[in-house]
Amino acid sequence: MKAHSVTMLGTGLIGDFYTMTLHRQRGRDRVGVVYSRTEARARAFAERWDIPVATTDLDAAIRHPDTDVVVVGLPNFLHEDVVKAVAAAGKPVLVTKPLGRTAAEARRMLEAVEGAGVFGGYLEDLCYTPKSLKAVTSVAEGAIGDVTWVRSREAHPGPHSAWFWDGRLTGGGAIVDLGCHCIEIIRSFVGKGNRPLEVLCHTDTLVHPIDDDDNAVALIRFESGAIGQFEVSWTFRGGMDLRDEVAGTNGTIWLNHFLRTGYEVFTAGGTGGYVAEKAETTAGWLFPVGDEVAELGYANMFTDMFEALDSGGTPRETLYDGYVVNEVIDACYRSSRSRAWEPVELFEWRGGTTARITSHPETYEGQVVIKREILPDGRAKLILKDPATGDFVDRVVAGG
Amino acid sequence: MKAHSVTMLGTGLIGDFYTMTLHRQRGRDRVGVVYSRTEARARAFAERWDIPVATTDLDAAIRHPDTDVVVVGLPNFLHEDVVKAVAAAGKPVLVTKPLGRTAAEARRMLEAVEGAGVFGGYLEDLCYTPKSLKAVTSVAEGAIGDVTWVRSREAHPGPHSAWFWDGRLTGGGAIVDLGCHCIEIIRSFVGKGNRPLEVLCHTDTLVHPIDDDDNAVALIRFESGAIGQFEVSWTFRGGMDLRDEVAGTNGTIWLNHFLRTGYEVFTAGGTGGYVAEKAETTAGWLFPVGDEVAELGYANMFTDMFEALDSGGTPRETLYDGYVVNEVIDACYRSSRSRAWEPVELFEWRGGTTARITSHPETYEGQVVIKREILPDGRAKLILKDPATGDFVDRVVAGG
Amino acid sequence: MKAHSVTMLGTGLIGDFYTMTLHRQRGRDRVGVVYSRTEARARAFAERWDIPVATTDLDAAIRHPDTDVVVVGLPNFLHEDVVKAVAAAGKPVLVTKPLGRTAAEARRMLEAVEGAGVFGGYLEDLCYTPKSLKAVTSVAEGAIGDVTWVRSREAHPGPHSAWFWDGRLTGGGAIVDLGCHCIEIIRSFVGKGNRPLEVLCHTDTLVHPIDDDDNAVALIRFESGAIGQFEVSWTFRGGMDLRDEVAGTNGTIWLNHFLRTGYEVFTAGGTGGYVAEKAETTAGWLFPVGDEVAELGYANMFTDMFEALDSGGTPRETLYDGYVVNEVIDACYRSSRSRAWEPVELFEWRGGTTARITSHPETYEGQVVIKREILPDGRAKLILKDPATGDFVDRVVAGG
Amino acid sequence: MKAHSVTMLGTGLIGDFYTMTLHRQRGRDRVGVVYSRTEARARAFAERWDIPVATTDLDAAIRHPDTDVVVVGLPNFLHEDVVKAVAAAGKPVLVTKPLGRTAAEARRMLEAVEGAGVFGGYLEDLCYTPKSLKAVTSVAEGAIGDVTWVRSREAHPGPHSAWFWDGRLTGGGAIVDLGCHCIEIIRSFVGKGNRPLEVLCHTDTLVHPIDDDDNAVALIRFESGAIGQFEVSWTFRGGMDLRDEVAGTNGTIWLNHFLRTGYEVFTAGGTGGYVAEKAETTAGWLFPVGDEVAELGYANMFTDMFEALDSGGTPRETLYDGYVVNEVIDACYRSSRSRAWEPVELFEWRGGTTARITSHPETYEGQVVIKREILPDGRAKLILKDPATGDFVDRVVAGG
Repeated sequence: MKAHSVTMLGTGLIGDFYTMTLHRQRGRDRVGVVYSRTEARARAFAERWDIPVATTDLDAAIRHPDTDVVVVGLPNFLHEDVVKAVAAAGKPVLVTKPLGRTAAEARRMLEAVEGAGVFGGYLEDLCYTPKSLKAVTSVAEGAIGDVTWVRSREAHPGPHSAWFWDGRLTGGGAIVDLGCHCIEIIRSFVGKGNRPLEVLCHTDTLVHPIDDDDNAVALIRFESGAIGQFEVSWTFRGGMDLRDEVAGTNGTIWLNHFLRTGYEVFTAGGTGGYVAEKAETTAGWLFPVGDEVAELGYANMFTDMFEALDSGGTPRETLYDGYVVNEVIDACYRSSRSRAWEPVELFEWRGGTTARITSHPETYEGQVVIKREILPDGRAKLILKDPATGDFVDRVVAGG
Repeated sequence: MKAHSVTMLGTGLIGDFYTMTLHRQRGRDRVGVVYSRTEARARAFAERWDIPVATTDLDAAIRHPDTDVVVVGLPNFLHEDVVKAVAAAGKPVLVTKPLGRTAAEARRMLEAVEGAGVFGGYLEDLCYTPKSLKAVTSVAEGAIGDVTWVRSREAHPGPHSAWFWDGRLTGGGAIVDLGCHCIEIIRSFVGKGNRPLEVLCHTDTLVHPIDDDDNAVALIRFESGAIGQFEVSWTFRGGMDLRDEVAGTNGTIWLNHFLRTGYEVFTAGGTGGYVAEKAETTAGWLFPVGDEVAELGYANMFTDMFEALDSGGTPRETLYDGYVVNEVIDACYRSSRSRAWEPVELFEWRGGTTARITSHPETYEGQVVIKREILPDGRAKLILKDPATGDFVDRVVAGG
Repeated sequence: MKAHSVTMLGTGLIGDFYTMTLHRQRGRDRVGVVYSRTEARARAFAERWDIPVATTDLDAAIRHPDTDVVVVGLPNFLHEDVVKAVAAAGKPVLVTKPLGRTAAEARRMLEAVEGAGVFGGYLEDLCYTPKSLKAVTSVAEGAIGDVTWVRSREAHPGPHSAWFWDGRLTGGGAIVDLGCHCIEIIRSFVGKGNRPLEVLCHTDTLVHPIDDDDNAVALIRFESGAIGQFEVSWTFRGGMDLRDEVAGTNGTIWLNHFLRTGYEVFTAGGTGGYVAEKAETTAGWLFPVGDEVAELGYANMFTDMFEALDSGGTPRETLYDGYVVNEVIDACYRSSRSRAWEPVELFEWRGGTTARITSHPETYEGQVVIKREILPDGRAKLILKDPATGDFVDRVVAGG
Repeated sequence: MKAHSVTMLGTGLIGDFYTMTLHRQRGRDRVGVVYSRTEARARAFAERWDIPVATTDLDAAIRHPDTDVVVVGLPNFLHEDVVKAVAAAGKPVLVTKPLGRTAAEARRMLEAVEGAGVFGGYLEDLCYTPKSLKAVTSVAEGAIGDVTWVRSREAHPGPHSAWFWDGRLTGGGAIVDLGCHCIEIIRSFVGKGNRPLEVLCHTDTLVHPIDDDDNAVALIRFESGAIGQFEVSWTFRGGMDLRDEVAGTNGTIWLNHFLRTGYEVFTAGGTGGYVAEKAETTAGWLFPVGDEVAELGYANMFTDMFEALDSGGTPRETLYDGYVVNEVIDACYRSSRSRAWEPVELFEWRGGTTARITSHPETYEGQVVIKREILPDGRAKLILKDPATGDFVDRVVAGG
């Protein structure tokens, strides 16, 4: 198996998470070069993670001869230029979420990378959490029947760095920061080939003195009829709320990635240490996660990326997926302004067509069986609909 | 304290729940008369609950001389005529949810009861669950600051009786059956005086071969800016999902009324008995509630109704509240058709005006403090916004 | 149905809980007389609960002509004299837990009440929680097979009143205060007729500067072979931990009565109010219960007591049960000193005999089937034991 | 960083888990040789995991020139001979739990490895779960004060392979299989330097037709006064119950490693696939874990072992720890027979001495403050003990 040498572009929180993931658990891949716009930050990062080369020269960082993969962990407004530069250098590029500030930016990045024929990956960690991967697999295997509804919720008290709050630099507010995760989680459950047709969205700025949304709710309607629902908030109190719920015709899945994962602590005094990302208190009942880097999907994400790269395959999350996410986000903001459903305007749909969710109701003596309940005495109560009149009746019959 | 003698109109599941509530725990009030459209059902109910009088004569049931309160537990399409008859008889009337099939029906009932000057109550049990009452009180006392968002979810695999499935008899589908609860739960948390302005709703019929909605999601925008979000489903698998979430500027509340209340059972075989309303299985992991009648709010609801009646006061849930619920439901169906926000058209608003949720951001050297985080070394990291340029910066300062 | 007029002896926290229970939810029974050793406390209590008569004259309180039931809510060291006085007055007596400081005291109370032929009840609320009652019923119906093990845990940071801490007045430490609940919960699950044979107990005083146990763990072995395990602590941090776990040959039950019951609150500031009994904080994540009086079993307990009294029956918890509890506690303290199993020395056993837990293993071709697992391919893997040699083998066979 | 080539001895479930751990997530270490007593099993394992060499020759497997670490994943009764052979070959040896069938065996292995001067590690995965590692660290940093009590519970319906059920081959029953985990989890929380002094244990064979314990409960008393409590069962119904609870003078920790980790599934039909180790059903509510290999600690365990090996350090779990575990187990069986406390007879104690848990109670006007509660009006209620008389009083004072 090949060992990769990575150039890390960016030294913020996400750069730390990515590098921690790569350098731990006896992994073979290492960051060999780190780039920051600020020399002091580049140097500190290199020391923190034992990286041989620190530089403020972007081109040198990308074209470093040892580097065979470039990871973009920079703020959103820098993505387009940087991704184009990596593509021009002919190197594989992995880009943090969201891909662009807008779908137009995302599309240009997609075209640059595909035009250059280099490998591209979209670093959407939350689709790679251990729970998500297992749940997506079991849904694909039919464990819950057809998916009818997915709720993905991401909420916390707001980002840690100044630039996140400036919509000019990011492309928007909480939807851009958090909704991008939710959209891709939803797509994973309804099926990547299930086309997102249109979007209904409400945004508001309720608490923070900013111009962009600090709260939003949106619905995404897919070709199958399934509804994706996401809720994002920068005003949530209590930590970081990351929950997904999936309803199917045959079952239900509830995932909780933070705050309630089987780890509960009460402490009367301060623990004097880092508890968890976005935790708000250091006393009382606290709900850490065991291993954030694993629980948030970073480990599985890089494994998938490098395995796809090594095998000449396609990673689970591609730059095209990143583009689709940006189109859904753009439609959300249009819907928020128009106050009505807005179409998702994909320049190209790479999935297939997905049939409408169907049910094949049983019939009983020419009537449609709406529901069948077993009574305590073993008989069955049927609720029947007369197809001619549309009338409904209860009927108790023998047998189970 | 007075003891009331009740006439129960209707012998379905809800009549059983109401009577079980009144007759248990050494309560002083009793059902003295039961009415059903079917003689056998009236008699069986009377025997089951030890009720002296069973009748199929509606007028006799209402006007029985011992009766001083009439409870309407009949299907929706019978409410209007029956409520008018009770009002005409000059007796207090308590009506099960939803009040009407439409807002127009609800308004006529409201006017009949108010015109007759009799006491009216709206039997919305889920606003009276022990958890809800306590949580509503703590929200009113400021425990979580201003409410920004309420999610109320009610989902199960579908109703037990045929008439529920016939929109001509009920007024609609899952929204009418389940959404009526959610709307009033939401109003309790954002404040009854906080006017519901408009509604955004998506409905679909995904699974059952019926004409009405078996799934719906809706947003209600209130005057304060708070958003109420409800999700209802007749296709949920796994039991009855009754959860509420409340987000405030200063805190969060999560309530779970069923399925995860601290009562967990695994059984390899059948338990051979009733587990819980809408439970789907009798083996494997099951999640009963301890005391359904109490947990679902019935006990507190009747206590509130009778105490209001005895004291000449107003119950927590009035027929006017029932009317407001019907108007919100009507707006939901209009929105589902128009695919855009629709106003809630109240003929009269009895609440006051509610100010917009406000935040009073701190300033620091002329800049607006967006966020303040305490660093491990005790210093504070401020995220500041320059009011002139709209630029954001990080700044680390001494002190906490 | 009869309405009872109660004399309440004692005005502490338990008197408040009892009276709150009796006076709420339109109950027919009322406290008519309250007694305290202190006049100011008697008067304040009477005002708080709207009780006509307050007195410091014990005999007058007991013999008040309106009173037809006397509730003993006084500290442990006063129970014996008071119970004897009520028995002598020929009135029904309900005694709070624990019955006595020692089994000898408990036995004398039992004999006084039975000798006088008056109704006696043991106010063990935690056997009456809604979850406990339902779970005990389902266990009795066979939902989990034979009970093999019951864990009952009660832990909090210590009692609210001075006298609780003085073993001379109470009979001991945390075992007397909390273990009495656990013992009776355990007996309810293994079966009241299942004789407690012997006890193994460890006690220690780890945190508080007192002479009695602030922590203890004990095992109770029953005739069936079932083990009851209780853990009590006055040094628990985080609120009040009330959990029961029941293992059976065919299933499992987990009950949580406090802290995790589907009610979760995060508040950044103080709620400014009472959250829950023994809560330690007023900010951060809090876990109230909805309705403490109901959740802790008080409501069901008084209903059972008065119904038994009215019908000439026996309540679920009798003074004999209280006596058994005291014998088990005495054995616990003996075991703690002897550091070995100690017999439970009942002067009289009123239950029957209970057969040893039995399993009837399947055989396969003359071998004993230890375990049967279904393989993914539909075949069954058997683990077999050769009865002659005692050797074990794996064997895969066709069919399920 | 060095890449290790491993010889895996044994091809059972644990061999699969170990190899899955080593070969995934782009780890640098690989299994190069696999040994089984059965040729077909060796070959199948080698194919399953892409291992170059499969052999039934134990000595060749150990002495293979590429091999620089030997992992012992064989049944208990084979450990001693094999470990001695690896030590004689002068190679690092990592041994699965439990180390020996008895402390005598464990001691001989320890002495063989230490005598040979080779690196030894004890593969106790459950001390390495992400939650355990983080919790142990926070306890060591003082987050919950002094540890007073640890409960570790491991229960499931019984092992998957025949030899586990034969005490002659394993050394005992559920205690040997499951208790070994619990003992080391408990030691991690009370402190590895905190000497286990004595043990109180009850065992029984309640359900399975075997000669050894299928259920056991034990207490371990440590030098500090802390109590470790473990419960093990081969008769648990509902899956695999892995929970730890830690009580401290200043806080509480609850860990749940299985069954309730934020992943909940309801499925009406079969999922048709592997759900989780020891899951009992494939329909109804199921509770998988996200990533078993990570959640059960295997990944962190091998990282620790190889890092210690590479750096010349000591792993978190040594063969000496394995020996201590066997001594505690031996004491448990002695206690079960003697029905009293039994000393833990270590031939050598390599920890230090640990002071008794101490509390430093506050005094108030010469009295000992037992408890301090803040009243709603802001005053404090003190419970005071008179050191002279031992009497307790309540006292309300100004201030908080």
